[in-house]
Amino acid sequence: MSSPDDGIRQIAARLESQGRTISSAELTDLLAGIAAAPQGFAGPEWLELIGKVDATTRAALIDAHRRLAIATHGIEDAIPPSSRLQALRAELQPQRLAWLTGFTGSAGMAIVLANQAAIFIDGRYTLQVTQQVDMALFAPQPLAQMPPDKWLAGTLKPGMKLGFDSWLHGIGECERLAAACVRAGAELVALAGNPIDAVWSDQPPPPLGPVVPHGQEFAGEESTAKRQRIALELAKSKADAAVLSLPDSIAWLLNIRGADVPHVPLPLSFAILHNDASVDLFIDPRKLTEAARQHLGNQVSVQPPAAFDSALEALGQAKRTVLVDPTTAPYRVAHRLQSSGARLVREADPVALPKACKNAVEIEGTRKAHARDGAALTRFLGWLANASAQGMLTEMEASDRLEAIRREHGSCRDLSFDTISGAGPHGAIVHYRATDRSNRRLGQGELYLVDSGAQYPDGTTDVTRTIAIGQPTEEMRDRFTRVLKGHIALATVRFPAGTTGSQLDVLARRPLWEIGLDYEHGTGHGVGSFLSVHEGPQRISKLPNTVALRPGMIVSNEPGYYKEGGYGIRIENLILVQKADEAGKFLHFETLTLAPIDRNLIDVSLLSDAELTWLNAYHARVAKQIGPQIDAPTQAWLEQATAPLNR
Amino acid sequence: MSSPDDGIRQIAARLESQGRTISSAELTDLLAGIAAAPQGFAGPEWLELIGKVDATTRAALIDAHRRLAIATHGIEDAIPPSSRLQALRAELQPQRLAWLTGFTGSAGMAIVLANQAAIFIDGRYTLQVTQQVDMALFAPQPLAQMPPDKWLAGTLKPGMKLGFDSWLHGIGECERLAAACVRAGAELVALAGNPIDAVWSDQPPPPLGPVVPHGQEFAGEESTAKRQRIALELAKSKADAAVLSLPDSIAWLLNIRGADVPHVPLPLSFAILHNDASVDLFIDPRKLTEAARQHLGNQVSVQPPAAFDSALEALGQAKRTVLVDPTTAPYRVAHRLQSSGARLVREADPVALPKACKNAVEIEGTRKAHARDGAALTRFLGWLANASAQGMLTEMEASDRLEAIRREHGSCRDLSFDTISGAGPHGAIVHYRATDRSNRRLGQGELYLVDSGAQYPDGTTDVTRTIAIGQPTEEMRDRFTRVLKGHIALATVRFPAGTTGSQLDVLARRPLWEIGLDYEHGTGHGVGSFLSVHEGPQRISKLPNTVALRPGMIVSNEPGYYKEGGYGIRIENLILVQKADEAGKFLHFETLTLAPIDRNLIDVSLLSDAELTWLNAYHARVAKQIGPQIDAPTQAWLEQATAPLNR
Repeated sequence: MSSPDDGIRQIAARLESQGRTISSAELTDLLAGIAAAPQGFAGPEWLELIGKVDATTRAALIDAHRRLAIATHGIEDAIPPSSRLQALRAELQPQRLAWLTGFTGSAGMAIVLANQAAIFIDGRYTLQVTQQVDMALFAPQPLAQMPPDKWLAGTLKPGMKLGFDSWLHGIGECERLAAACVRAGAELVALAGNPIDAVWSDQPPPPLGPVVPHGQEFAGEESTAKRQRIALELAKSKADAAVLSLPDSIAWLLNIRGADVPHVPLPLSFAILHNDASVDLFIDPRKLTEAARQHLGNQVSVQPPAAFDSALEALGQAKRTVLVDPTTAPYRVAHRLQSSGARLVREADPVALPKACKNAVEIEGTRKAHARDGAALTRFLGWLANASAQGMLTEMEASDRLEAIRREHGSCRDLSFDTISGAGPHGAIVHYRATDRSNRRLGQGELYLVDSGAQYPDGTTDVTRTIAIGQPTEEMRDRFTRVLKGHIALATVRFPAGTTGSQLDVLARRPLWEIGLDYEHGTGHGVGSFLSVHEGPQRISKLPNTVALRPGMIVSNEPGYYKEGGYGIRIENLILVQKADEAGKFLHFETLTLAPIDRNLIDVSLLSDAELTWLNAYHARVAKQIGPQIDAPTQAWLEQATAPLNR
Repeated sequence: MSSPDDGIRQIAARLESQGRTISSAELTDLLAGIAAAPQGFAGPEWLELIGKVDATTRAALIDAHRRLAIATHGIEDAIPPSSRLQALRAELQPQRLAWLTGFTGSAGMAIVLANQAAIFIDGRYTLQVTQQVDMALFAPQPLAQMPPDKWLAGTLKPGMKLGFDSWLHGIGECERLAAACVRAGAELVALAGNPIDAVWSDQPPPPLGPVVPHGQEFAGEESTAKRQRIALELAKSKADAAVLSLPDSIAWLLNIRGADVPHVPLPLSFAILHNDASVDLFIDPRKLTEAARQHLGNQVSVQPPAAFDSALEALGQAKRTVLVDPTTAPYRVAHRLQSSGARLVREADPVALPKACKNAVEIEGTRKAHARDGAALTRFLGWLANASAQGMLTEMEASDRLEAIRREHGSCRDLSFDTISGAGPHGAIVHYRATDRSNRRLGQGELYLVDSGAQYPDGTTDVTRTIAIGQPTEEMRDRFTRVLKGHIALATVRFPAGTTGSQLDVLARRPLWEIGLDYEHGTGHGVGSFLSVHEGPQRISKLPNTVALRPGMIVSNEPGYYKEGGYGIRIENLILVQKADEAGKFLHFETLTLAPIDRNLIDVSLLSDAELTWLNAYHARVAKQIGPQIDAPTQAWLEQATAPLNR
């Protein structure tokens, strides 16, 4: 526990006089946890976690919270919040890697040996890692060519022991690492605690974001119905229970939302779903608002996180058959279950697929959210056309303006990730984040890439547009048009049920491949419904994926091209999988995102008739749906920005 | 041992008088084994397996061999020889499944329980299985929707035991089946023997096809060099040895060829490659010609198949680390190794990838083989144009004629698989084989599909053409043109190094998908060099495959369309992976197959300019390379068959 200061002591005394008994030490911890939650979703709900209070106490609490938040988020500010949400893995601090190495990318791994250390990063971060990490300390390793297991097999010496925190690494991952250690004659050993935590003295507490119900008008299906249909699936797999270790699976299943993770409205937790449709939810009880408690009902048993370990053991002692997803569950879960006698069924998280297939209410919600978000983006683009003309506008001014426009709409709860606002060469840094130090003007003759999105209760958006500031070069127009051709190829493909995103990926790349170019990231990721902007199990990428695209899934369509030191291009819309015929034998995509694509960057001579037809029809749709939502000057701008292109 | 007849006794006596001591029982077995080998590759080499003999003895031997061959091949004739070569798995009789169920497809599996039985078949055999198998005895199960493990999990009852022959099932396969049994509360048990063999009284003996060296002029790399470079790879994997269970890996590694498998020139065997580049070859020594013995040299230790088991045990007792491919090695191999103390490295067969990447000599050889084979096919197609005009020509007459033309060239050692010669609705049966009963005339207004290939010492061919007999319908032309567009899309794609066939597959399907059609087979398989017409590890298919296409790999490009009860279309060329730039950052294909594509079936209005250009350029190449090899009437026919198409 932390030591309370005088302000806190006074508030605790006030609370006690109002019938809410809480020690000042407890109150300090509670406020520190609340302050450790990201601020994006911080509505007034956090006050409910303390109780009904008078106005003076309320003001004092808000003040104390603000003080703590500033202290806590000194760290958080330096970290681009996780767009790939590795925070989901556990109630871990994703900041550990950043704290140790300086690297703030959304995905990475470090291995520290007595005499050397390595940091493993994917293609997106090749550049960033060299800017943030001391190469003399950590040798950067490209994940694709040198995955950790390969590095270990070649680096470890016989007799060495490699320690790991069994909460932080998945089952499959640990098995690969263990096999690599064995091959080198070494051994992988689960540690009792986390060695970083042992040396990181001023580590922030786990966040305490308030948990609230996600209303039926947004969710479209009661939690009981969801639990029942997934419990039936469990029975089919002959499993007695499933361990859920992904917080977004839990949030979807229970129709709750939270505020523990930046830009993603979910509470960190673990859960066990039994095949009678009851749930044990392991979550800090201080996070639950009264509304959430009532909403969860008596089929959901709320228990503190510390009880999770013994609940796993109890399943084992009762000789239960337990479904565990080896790709997402921490190693410790499998180990606890097996060592206490449970039988493991290693299968995919049973919630992932139902969650990915949006129901009619979620689909209608996301269409509305996209229309709303498209209007905001269109207003921004119209403003940008003027504001960038003088060459004085900076990346941060642009993204601030975009955020402000989005937040004008009351339903915008947060951005869905930190805006990528990159001018000129910064556009080529795939996960660029403008900082005071890097902030750059949008220069004439440059491309400006803006990748952004918002969280609305009815849907999550994610959209990228690339804009020519002044006159683009012929090369820029050629590359942009090829990216557009790839985008259209994916947007228009019709494919048999059973097809995976991996099978379709090439369609988005082929126009670039034709001239020997490519982009080093996936083409599309799943998107949640007021949940994570990156979700599985579907994906459109070069990497093999055996999960077929199904009606109701939302994925991004975002081919790009990046010329290091020059410019970056990406065109991203979200697309929804739909049946193409009554029986659903064939499927196709509906494009959800509505915002103009820069006509100045399109070389019509490179487009086929079918491609040109698609583009003009898309722009007509944008004009029709966005036009009525915007002011007259923006309307006038939109009209020419969406006017048909001709040969 | 079999009981010798009088003729054999006389030959044995003759042989003894010429200094070759062999008992008449041994001679009977030897001749029975030789007769059990497929006849395709049976040159005079089999006589060498008996020894130097005078002319009279030679004539008597040939006569005895012929008698035995007729008796043995009564069975073999009814079985479409395995194009997917499941025979490779072991010295098994692929006929077991056919003997038990009647099903003669090239891939299948049966599970027999006390009160029910199932046969598992892939999409190619959905129709065939219903024609050959008694549905009252065996319930057919489509592999994709109901794989054996899923069926077992749902069918087995607690306490049941499922037996299997551990020589016939792979490691990974057994692990999946075992997991399914466990889930149903049942158990998977390796049997001491094969239960089919116990009840199949007149089972033919294992084949004894003569083994001969594969000359350096065809192989392009000495066996010692191959062994050394793969031994180096073993060392990198920290393995002491690798078990090779694929006979084509062994044949390639040792530069030997054999005659144990129909249409595939290889000897059945097992081998252990040690990391000092020495090899233990487990093969019936009666198969080795003197030339083969000399060629193998003293780094290859020849041992009888019965010694394999104890060699595995010896590796275990010496605590060796042994590489085993879990996808191809029999379960027994892993079990023997592990139970005796070896450490397993589960990795891909280390020979598969080097074998797949053809060297310059093999590439030059295959180009020559394709030019030769294209001339034979062109002569056939020219002949067909006339011969089919009266409507009296049958499928078998056509395929016999094609085989005869191919065999006119002395270098044709065999067909590379049984010709698929299907008229009208038979063309829609993907692996159709014409029999006396099914034999059909090529009717006017029908499509005729012919898929065939040959084995030349310098290369293996595989080509499919679809021909309009008389006037095709507009639908046929539309479908054919879409298949052609898919074929061209794959033939012309340029792709970055690291790309797999799974990523490219969609290119061949998209024109069909556009109108809600597809084909239920892969788009391309690897092809060996005077080896199997189907080889891995690369593949172009919907199924995920993590093996990148590399320069020197040969794959087929064979999209199709099948209208059940109507017609079948397939256009197949073999294509070679080549570097598209000096550094090999991008790759593309060279089309190897040279034969006209039926212009009558092409709807030019559906082709893009680029597609039409490809087609006309391909035809010009065919005319230029095939023209000089053929007679004048065929030349005249070829000239119009390859004339440029215009809009």
